[in-house]
Amino acid sequence: MTIPSDLDISRATELRPMDDIAGQLGIGEHLLEPYGRNVAKISLDAIDELSDRPRSRYVVVSAITPTPLGEGKTTTTVGLGQALNHIGKRSTVAVRQPSMGPTFGIKGGAAGGGYSQVVPMEALNLHLTGDMHAVTAAHNLLSAMVDNHLHKGNALGIDPHRITWRRVLDVNDRDLRNIVSGLGGKVDGGPRQTGFDITAASEVMAVLALSTSLADLRRRLGRIVVGYTPDGEPITAEQLKAAGAMAVIMRDALKPNLMQTTENTPVLVHAGPFGNIAHGNSSIVADLVGSRCTDYLITEAGFGADMGAERFFNIKCRTSGLQPDAAVLVATVRALKAHSGRYKVVAGKPLPPEMLEENPEDVFAGADNLRKQIDNIRLHGVSPVVAINAFPSDFTSEHEAIRQIAEAEGAHVAVSNHFTEGGKGGTELAEAVVAACEEPAGFQVLYPDEADLRTKIETIATKVYGAEAVSYAPAAAKSIDSYEANGYGDLPVCIAKTHLSLSSDPSLLGAPTGWTLPVREVRASVGAGFVYPICGDMRTMPGLGSHPQAESIDLDAEGNITGLM
Amino acid sequence: MTIPSDLDISRATELRPMDDIAGQLGIGEHLLEPYGRNVAKISLDAIDELSDRPRSRYVVVSAITPTPLGEGKTTTTVGLGQALNHIGKRSTVAVRQPSMGPTFGIKGGAAGGGYSQVVPMEALNLHLTGDMHAVTAAHNLLSAMVDNHLHKGNALGIDPHRITWRRVLDVNDRDLRNIVSGLGGKVDGGPRQTGFDITAASEVMAVLALSTSLADLRRRLGRIVVGYTPDGEPITAEQLKAAGAMAVIMRDALKPNLMQTTENTPVLVHAGPFGNIAHGNSSIVADLVGSRCTDYLITEAGFGADMGAERFFNIKCRTSGLQPDAAVLVATVRALKAHSGRYKVVAGKPLPPEMLEENPEDVFAGADNLRKQIDNIRLHGVSPVVAINAFPSDFTSEHEAIRQIAEAEGAHVAVSNHFTEGGKGGTELAEAVVAACEEPAGFQVLYPDEADLRTKIETIATKVYGAEAVSYAPAAAKSIDSYEANGYGDLPVCIAKTHLSLSSDPSLLGAPTGWTLPVREVRASVGAGFVYPICGDMRTMPGLGSHPQAESIDLDAEGNITGLM
Repeated sequence: MTIPSDLDISRATELRPMDDIAGQLGIGEHLLEPYGRNVAKISLDAIDELSDRPRSRYVVVSAITPTPLGEGKTTTTVGLGQALNHIGKRSTVAVRQPSMGPTFGIKGGAAGGGYSQVVPMEALNLHLTGDMHAVTAAHNLLSAMVDNHLHKGNALGIDPHRITWRRVLDVNDRDLRNIVSGLGGKVDGGPRQTGFDITAASEVMAVLALSTSLADLRRRLGRIVVGYTPDGEPITAEQLKAAGAMAVIMRDALKPNLMQTTENTPVLVHAGPFGNIAHGNSSIVADLVGSRCTDYLITEAGFGADMGAERFFNIKCRTSGLQPDAAVLVATVRALKAHSGRYKVVAGKPLPPEMLEENPEDVFAGADNLRKQIDNIRLHGVSPVVAINAFPSDFTSEHEAIRQIAEAEGAHVAVSNHFTEGGKGGTELAEAVVAACEEPAGFQVLYPDEADLRTKIETIATKVYGAEAVSYAPAAAKSIDSYEANGYGDLPVCIAKTHLSLSSDPSLLGAPTGWTLPVREVRASVGAGFVYPICGDMRTMPGLGSHPQAESIDLDAEGNITGLM
Repeated sequence: MTIPSDLDISRATELRPMDDIAGQLGIGEHLLEPYGRNVAKISLDAIDELSDRPRSRYVVVSAITPTPLGEGKTTTTVGLGQALNHIGKRSTVAVRQPSMGPTFGIKGGAAGGGYSQVVPMEALNLHLTGDMHAVTAAHNLLSAMVDNHLHKGNALGIDPHRITWRRVLDVNDRDLRNIVSGLGGKVDGGPRQTGFDITAASEVMAVLALSTSLADLRRRLGRIVVGYTPDGEPITAEQLKAAGAMAVIMRDALKPNLMQTTENTPVLVHAGPFGNIAHGNSSIVADLVGSRCTDYLITEAGFGADMGAERFFNIKCRTSGLQPDAAVLVATVRALKAHSGRYKVVAGKPLPPEMLEENPEDVFAGADNLRKQIDNIRLHGVSPVVAINAFPSDFTSEHEAIRQIAEAEGAHVAVSNHFTEGGKGGTELAEAVVAACEEPAGFQVLYPDEADLRTKIETIATKVYGAEAVSYAPAAAKSIDSYEANGYGDLPVCIAKTHLSLSSDPSLLGAPTGWTLPVREVRASVGAGFVYPICGDMRTMPGLGSHPQAESIDLDAEGNITGLM
């Protein structure tokens, strides 16, 4: 079976007017701000205006530990939303906004796929309503004000060697990772080692995702720490008098963006924080709006359940106060086979052909990872649903193997064909999710705010990752002590580690035990509201490949976009 | 008399729905793409669809050589548009989009002022529809692809020391003027001296402003030269396979933005190329649309008539084929007094108090500049209209002095009170413009395409600036020769010099004679389509002051923007 390309399916969609889509949410035109014909922003007044309505069922879509190819989490999120509508349950989908850098890099865009896409994909993957650009502008205004403060006499006494605030751009540009700025003459600032991250990695992006209101956004921006004095006193954006202007730049960006799926299910697209050094979830305000609109709100959490879902529970839900009813774990035959340790899957390359042969034994051999991720959902008192994201190359025996593993753990389970069939193909999954949501809810965060930072890290490491212990490099231990002295000890933690293993070593598949989580360094996003221990090398500015996707993207003679993936 | 602040006047405006504003242009809803409630983009299909309609009268607003405070050119442009509507002539205004960098710097925004503003000023001065951000993204994608090309083996053989393509950001950040990028390890690129310009100075911005269609934009982007081989062969964006992706990023940005004035006159806001190293005019596509809509299309050209208007005639009109019918020269009492050489006016400081005393003799003493700028309009076969932009501190005797000078030159002349009274205050100016447009038109460019580059430079220097001769630094002469060898000799020239004097020395007021224009360096914007000789120090990345406007900008308790100027 061949299905058309994502771009062709996207183009063939009959888009409904945004008024109709908003109508499905019960959101009136007075709350809608159109951006072009197929995207609209929703006024934040909606949060108050809808507050009398009953809450939607709140479902997060996560995954088992993925292969480098990804297991179709966005596609499943979109497909599940469509499938719920298909079985007569009104639903809304909430996803992150893709970053433009990777769209022109190797990865291509991120809009779901097949018959489960957010459309129009060109709008989603390019500027959308400019929120990413607003993050870039707000972030870099603060950067300029930091250096300007030094240039104009440094009244706050910032130590130039302890400035942590870098600059950002939404482009894959390895040459900007490490730069020396301020060269030239006396009027051109002062030389200083610094660099650029990709916009998604900006703390301003994490602030956008975690703010609960415009006033809250303003406060969080003010709390951003840009560096320290020689005595270790933090210097904030508020002290630099930059936070007001940053909030003004971000004012419209805080309004969630409304789009639709290939089957006209409403989709809220909002914020795209990096999954490595930030929590990687879509915005709280989108969920505050979306959770009052339809029977179900389906949202996505980046990476595997040990990362995205853990942070969804312990950072996002802790901040928003919203309580999830069920969590979907996307599992694929290929990922379970990969966890058997018998194959090597490499990003950007085809699967080894022997991996495509019928082999349920390999699936059983990779079961530990699925079991552990089911357990990670249960740890938070949430009902797990295993979604088998079906590929044309799968065999029924292999799907049955996943079903057996999941059922033995007491999880709901369903095969889903949303990629090839749209919502209709996800009927079984939708019904499993409905059943899971009917179970008594007992959501709980994993640790209290007042636990100290080491306890928080060790709780996640041992309970969620399956580590035996945590080790701290001297610099990491020092940072933790100073953060607690500075009053940041009450913040939740967002552990930056590889997403390709439950452990911090990407080569350890399945569910490794007996290992130690090495905390190399600890940083704080005080404005966004989390501390992030770094375990491994975290790249915050991607590069381009030998043949970046950009080389294939162009306009045709009619001005249509070609080559966007 | 006190009038409310610009922000208060802007807020008090009763905005009409964008459909109504488009209706004034005779543009149907099918050509309109809303961006929020108060801004819309106009589809480029309008150019074809409107091509049967009669052409509007086409009027450019320029100025005498300004003081560092500016003489109210945008305000007069907006006021004239309103005034024409006031006397029953349907009119449309076309202006540049302000840059966000200066909005947060010392300058504040640029939306006109008083009762002659483009509204809402918050939308105009912040992201608008994201066109500036698109320029930033397209420009920096090319930058990343240049460095990636070096990193991946440099198949095109670019000389790393002859890369002319820098990076851009729309922020005033002096520390980015000169950087070393590509530090770190082998995977982080290679060290190279480079830097950032402000987005308005990007050649992509000039391409946006000078393109006549989407296909033309695509071609111009492909022609952009990023650097040279060791043998001096130019390397283009087309060769790097970047131009298609850049065009995709710029596709929506090429659609002109529709807004309105404080009196609901339609305004096209589109493109904002730097006035120093680019031609500093709003876009051609906006004028192609706007020139088929109403009786009059009023557009603005940056700086004095020697710079903005000269480039409007010889670069913009040459490219678009549109023929101007009249040119307004904004003159103020303070600028003429300044040209007397008896006062010192400094940006950001109040005028010397003695300059505010009644003194028509000072005005007469500064007359040479006005006379020469009137002559500069006539050189191009266009009717000049002197607009006396009235200030509350002016005296009637001083206005009369300007009137006598202008009338002696045979120019139309009018006092205009559009700042304090809106369109009604510009009635006399509107009537003068109508009269000027009735005169037989004889527009001509100053030099033919096929003249060589030195001839073009010398023609402008001697005929427009009043120079006696032109001198070329050795590097400049060498560049000219190599550009002509490369086939760029047919391009028009855009001379980068101070805007504070007719000469290249900002301290020489009035109409200096007997001086030599020193061409220090010559660069080419091959994609945009001009060669730019540099005469003096041209700063392409501003810095922030001791107390940037950003420090005063914030949100109030209701989420409204405060402190934006």
